[in-house]
Amino acid sequence: MHPIGHYQQIISDYFATTSLEKEPVNLYRPIQYIVSLGGKRMRPVLTLMAAEIFNADCRKALPAAIAVEIFHNFSLVHDDIMDDAPLRRGHQTVHEKWDLNTGILSGDAMLILAYRHFEEYEPEVFRSLAKLFSKTALEVCEGQQWDVDFEQRDDVTLPEYLRMIEYKTAVLVAAAMKMGAIVAQTTQENCDLIYDFGLNLGIAFQLQDDYLDAFGDPETFGKQVGGDIIENKKTYLYLKALAQANPYEKENLLQWFAIQPEDYTDKIVAVKNIFRHTGADAATKQAIEDYTLKAFATLEKMDISEDKKAMLKNFGLGLMGRKV
Amino acid sequence: MHPIGHYQQIISDYFATTSLEKEPVNLYRPIQYIVSLGGKRMRPVLTLMAAEIFNADCRKALPAAIAVEIFHNFSLVHDDIMDDAPLRRGHQTVHEKWDLNTGILSGDAMLILAYRHFEEYEPEVFRSLAKLFSKTALEVCEGQQWDVDFEQRDDVTLPEYLRMIEYKTAVLVAAAMKMGAIVAQTTQENCDLIYDFGLNLGIAFQLQDDYLDAFGDPETFGKQVGGDIIENKKTYLYLKALAQANPYEKENLLQWFAIQPEDYTDKIVAVKNIFRHTGADAATKQAIEDYTLKAFATLEKMDISEDKKAMLKNFGLGLMGRKV
Repeated sequence: MHPIGHYQQIISDYFATTSLEKEPVNLYRPIQYIVSLGGKRMRPVLTLMAAEIFNADCRKALPAAIAVEIFHNFSLVHDDIMDDAPLRRGHQTVHEKWDLNTGILSGDAMLILAYRHFEEYEPEVFRSLAKLFSKTALEVCEGQQWDVDFEQRDDVTLPEYLRMIEYKTAVLVAAAMKMGAIVAQTTQENCDLIYDFGLNLGIAFQLQDDYLDAFGDPETFGKQVGGDIIENKKTYLYLKALAQANPYEKENLLQWFAIQPEDYTDKIVAVKNIFRHTGADAATKQAIEDYTLKAFATLEKMDISEDKKAMLKNFGLGLMGRKV
Repeated sequence: MHPIGHYQQIISDYFATTSLEKEPVNLYRPIQYIVSLGGKRMRPVLTLMAAEIFNADCRKALPAAIAVEIFHNFSLVHDDIMDDAPLRRGHQTVHEKWDLNTGILSGDAMLILAYRHFEEYEPEVFRSLAKLFSKTALEVCEGQQWDVDFEQRDDVTLPEYLRMIEYKTAVLVAAAMKMGAIVAQTTQENCDLIYDFGLNLGIAFQLQDDYLDAFGDPETFGKQVGGDIIENKKTYLYLKALAQANPYEKENLLQWFAIQPEDYTDKIVAVKNIFRHTGADAATKQAIEDYTLKAFATLEKMDISEDKKAMLKNFGLGLMGRKV
């Protein structure tokens, strides 16, 4: 096993040495642009790591890892259009740097390019990977649709919210790990267990993202603290607060989430107070811990050495140990 | 072998009895809507037909045929956004009936759904189909990008134009037929020959579309005659006319293609006259015949019975026998 940086290096070496740019350049240059912006590349790292966990050379999993990363970037390009986002990783989004049509078409090409990377594998492995990939990609679309739908609804339940983040975020983390396991040709049971590990860790990670958005340290949290509150986003914190609020707190929270004041300082303070008084903050922390422990529990059933279990557990703790 | 109607019935029965609508409905209802609008469904018909040509039960090719049709509809949904088209098959386009984001996301889901239909086949066939599909889908994106690029360029050459229509239109016709051959598990040579047959017939078909747009019978041609001229589209007719024009005709044609008059009657008459005087009309007819004959020539090399060759030839002649 290797430290995360080792796998990240393999991924970034790949993108640094493999040019995606070819004719017609207006189709491929935006693809080269967005994948070159980098990011932490956690998903492909997980694919490489999972392959090694199950005793394969991690480089054997590189094509699958690249497919996962290209798919992730495809979803960013199209999501950024839908959210009308000007920036991604501190740079202009594709539809902003070029135009809407370029964002759509280059995104489409990326989705297809992702599939092509599975062609490096022989038929049985190819079929398993492409099948898992299609299922996952469709779930990501469904999660995105639910997210869009929820903006217009005021009766979103906590189970619905959890399903949304599972589909929009966690299934890709889970599938990324399972792909490493498939490439390593381990047992079906190990494949399913690593999927569950990734799924629960992915949900925990997204819930923590919700939590940190409100209660994170402005010094270390990458985004603007309170961003979800400013945008009236129905996060786990918000839905839990509504569920646990007394009539007065509920009325108060609903009022704050009906407006978008220019100066949002008071709003952030007030909403965070409601999150605390209703116990939504503690409940969210509890949910993060529950999903993390659920992920760790699947490790126990896995047919791998103890040091590898410890390694995966450490990785999970590292991921969850982001500053609060 | 069966008449075309037989295969069309199988495809329309499939879509009539298989509901694509599921949760979240805002993702799947637009998909159900666009595939239900129908159309001639020539591409999936070709897949079924090709399977029978190579001695398989055409129903064995149904999943591949459905994949082709869903992909074709995906490309229509995204192309209609890019062209800002309000109507498709006489009904509202998806982005017009719903909105931009729905058009993007439902389109994405269709591209993934297309791949999923290949999962009905065992690994070797699955891999061959998915590989051909990815290659083709990417070429369709490239063709669409060239088409977009050409709008901004005034130095498009005839070979470039031919490559554009080959990628944007003909490769999918070719791949649709080859998929039937792959499912039937015929020889590699037959697979390649039926691909070439479809490719050349697809190019001939698109060139005929260009020709009929200007010289078709308004009574039988589905679209507005002269539509390409009104929109200053750089078709084969236009590029050939420019290439063969004398300096006076060239100047004249360029001037007409620099404006979009409210009343376009005079423009259509004048441009069609230039197409005739330069011999572009005759040259286009010649190109259509050349590609059709090239398609028929591949039939001769194919290892199938004479009556099947005659059947494919008749199909081609029927396709090319549209009213001029």
